[in-house]
Amino acid sequence: MERNVIVGQSGGPTAAINSSLAGVYRTAKDRGAKKVYGMLHGIQGLLQESYIDLSDHIKTKLDEELLKRTPAAFLGSCRYKLPAIHENKDVYEKIFAILDKLDIEAFIYIGGNDSMDTIKKLSDYAIITGHPCRFIGTPKTIDNDLPLTDHTPGFGSAAKYIGTSMKEIIRDGFCLDYGHGLVTIVEVMGRNAGWLTGATALSKGEDCEGPDLIYLPEIAFDLKKFMKKVKKLLEIKTSIMVVVSEGIKTTDGTYVCELAKPIDFVDGFGHKQLTGTASYLATYVANELGCKTRAIELSTLQRSASHLASRVDILEATQAGGAAVMAADEGDSGKMVVLERISDDPYQCGTSIRDVHKIANGEKLVPREWINKEGDYVTDEFIAHVLPLIQGDVSPIMVDGIPRHLLTPKELSHRS
Amino acid sequence: MERNVIVGQSGGPTAAINSSLAGVYRTAKDRGAKKVYGMLHGIQGLLQESYIDLSDHIKTKLDEELLKRTPAAFLGSCRYKLPAIHENKDVYEKIFAILDKLDIEAFIYIGGNDSMDTIKKLSDYAIITGHPCRFIGTPKTIDNDLPLTDHTPGFGSAAKYIGTSMKEIIRDGFCLDYGHGLVTIVEVMGRNAGWLTGATALSKGEDCEGPDLIYLPEIAFDLKKFMKKVKKLLEIKTSIMVVVSEGIKTTDGTYVCELAKPIDFVDGFGHKQLTGTASYLATYVANELGCKTRAIELSTLQRSASHLASRVDILEATQAGGAAVMAADEGDSGKMVVLERISDDPYQCGTSIRDVHKIANGEKLVPREWINKEGDYVTDEFIAHVLPLIQGDVSPIMVDGIPRHLLTPKELSHRS
Repeated sequence: MERNVIVGQSGGPTAAINSSLAGVYRTAKDRGAKKVYGMLHGIQGLLQESYIDLSDHIKTKLDEELLKRTPAAFLGSCRYKLPAIHENKDVYEKIFAILDKLDIEAFIYIGGNDSMDTIKKLSDYAIITGHPCRFIGTPKTIDNDLPLTDHTPGFGSAAKYIGTSMKEIIRDGFCLDYGHGLVTIVEVMGRNAGWLTGATALSKGEDCEGPDLIYLPEIAFDLKKFMKKVKKLLEIKTSIMVVVSEGIKTTDGTYVCELAKPIDFVDGFGHKQLTGTASYLATYVANELGCKTRAIELSTLQRSASHLASRVDILEATQAGGAAVMAADEGDSGKMVVLERISDDPYQCGTSIRDVHKIANGEKLVPREWINKEGDYVTDEFIAHVLPLIQGDVSPIMVDGIPRHLLTPKELSHRS
Repeated sequence: MERNVIVGQSGGPTAAINSSLAGVYRTAKDRGAKKVYGMLHGIQGLLQESYIDLSDHIKTKLDEELLKRTPAAFLGSCRYKLPAIHENKDVYEKIFAILDKLDIEAFIYIGGNDSMDTIKKLSDYAIITGHPCRFIGTPKTIDNDLPLTDHTPGFGSAAKYIGTSMKEIIRDGFCLDYGHGLVTIVEVMGRNAGWLTGATALSKGEDCEGPDLIYLPEIAFDLKKFMKKVKKLLEIKTSIMVVVSEGIKTTDGTYVCELAKPIDFVDGFGHKQLTGTASYLATYVANELGCKTRAIELSTLQRSASHLASRVDILEATQAGGAAVMAADEGDSGKMVVLERISDDPYQCGTSIRDVHKIANGEKLVPREWINKEGDYVTDEFIAHVLPLIQGDVSPIMVDGIPRHLLTPKELSHRS
């Protein structure tokens, strides 16, 4: 590389998104990039010329290691949807003027479905106008719902945290004895795709029974059938563990969490904010069956728990960041890096690139055959697919008993 | 020791309660106890002659290590309050008949305030009837609210988890940009004592700002003053972190969570089940200030996250279990083991025993001088007191990417 690189982060945070950033930085530097800029709050920040020189923040190899262990987007994230090119050319002209001013040859965007829409539009605009800048996406989402890639960086760490926490919650449930039984409803992220919800089954093993019922958003939720199952389970167990995706819907398409109260918050991409599914079902079960219930939302913790990151995930996220820079350096544009599983045993995975037009706004759900017939558990094939992705640990760098992170530009600005 | 020991666990689970169990087992065996029995679900189970021989479950040194890494009461817990001796002698006669049948010379109970009531009553009964069995309590509670002991086993691990999770949540909050600001309300356990709520301040350091406001249950919660502070903070920061104890009350003594809906579940000791404080405040702030808000309950995870246990805590919990057996072996009864801090720098802590009559049903709150004047943060003295208790790690024994636990007797029974 002979000129500069700019990198941004977009969409929901993960425990691995900064490893991709570290990968972009390292490979860009190794390939001769003069400067590596970071957009603050993605494309939205760039439009306001809000960016940093990453070398001012990553000064040592230790900083790079700390960055990999820092959860949530180091540069700040956004949920900004670019207008269609024919709707508003001004926005594109502004962006490209900034890119020219910064002498950018490669634009790397780390994000999920929605973020790949940004790469698609910018690379289209570059083709239309004959601009030489290259645009490459790096996948990132705990939801694991991007098409064409075997899995997404960020998913493995979230799955490891979810499997571990699930096991600890199961243990907690069994040790109590409430007479009429205890039903715990655990709510997991994943609007349409049940990858994370299914990952609770990773808790199952020689030392743990795992959850009793797992409801993925891919299958319509039948409240009557569910109540029947819980009632039957309560006859044989004192503690029942039910896992639900935040996005489960009844057969008529209503979100279960909407049964309790209407949803009033909708984000920039038109997505409803889902929450309250576990709480609704816990109250419902308590009223119907007269047993003790509790609702647990894994909430934000499941996407930001870098203290329990998967080593495979962190390595792959770094690798994906580096591969994006390599692709741009070799002349590609309008592409997203994908992970390609080469073999299962031993697990081996490489990177490749695919046309971002085939990915943006698409969604990969859990295949029907990886959910059991009854629609209330994942199959052994699901577990075999996910298991390699949660292997190995990344020891946190502990200072005074708490994991150390790299201070973000935003927090740094609060201090000055 | 020449005869047998019986041990039980009672009250809310912690990440360290099984380390105390391991300590009891190891010291009893080392001191010559023939058998070490475990009551299943504490005194409630014992009354139904439900117990195990611990040697059937702890067969190897590896099992002992796994036990220390297993969260929540391995033997099962209970919340059973013994009647006063004059109210119901039959219960006592039944318990002592079972103890005689099992040839018990020492009865060890691992628990919190309520559980020490059990030790007090049983030892009183033994004195009245001239029974030779000895009764010793081992402290356990994440709440850290037992009198006379410097701190309680279980607290350090919960504090470490809470400090770490808080930091990850703060990072998550800063990376998003919602325009009108984001207010996150994090709800932490601790009905009357704010030790755990204050532990969120452990997230503060060179790399993290820590929470903005911390409301402990020791101080009456002033909603108006709170709203004023949040409004002011929103003028200078995009992401505000507020921590509240589940037990904060308004000046007239109403739990904040009761402002949303009446509480309908009360446990065996007459305690109201508190939940929904964060959710109530998040809705309130959103309605009043028109900003995005979110509520996060650390819930069960904060008491069962053994994957992030504190080494100091696990060692002290083990030591406290052993000290209970030693005390009984040396002829003491009606006592609880306490932790005595010998020095702060370097941190040194030993065990001693105290009269359980001075502990049972008592409560140690955070001293007023360790909370700031405004009543919305903890002081440096608070942090200096807690910091030594979260030091060091206990590496989980990872199998297939997930921490391995020791299979509990209850789960074992499900398999046969």
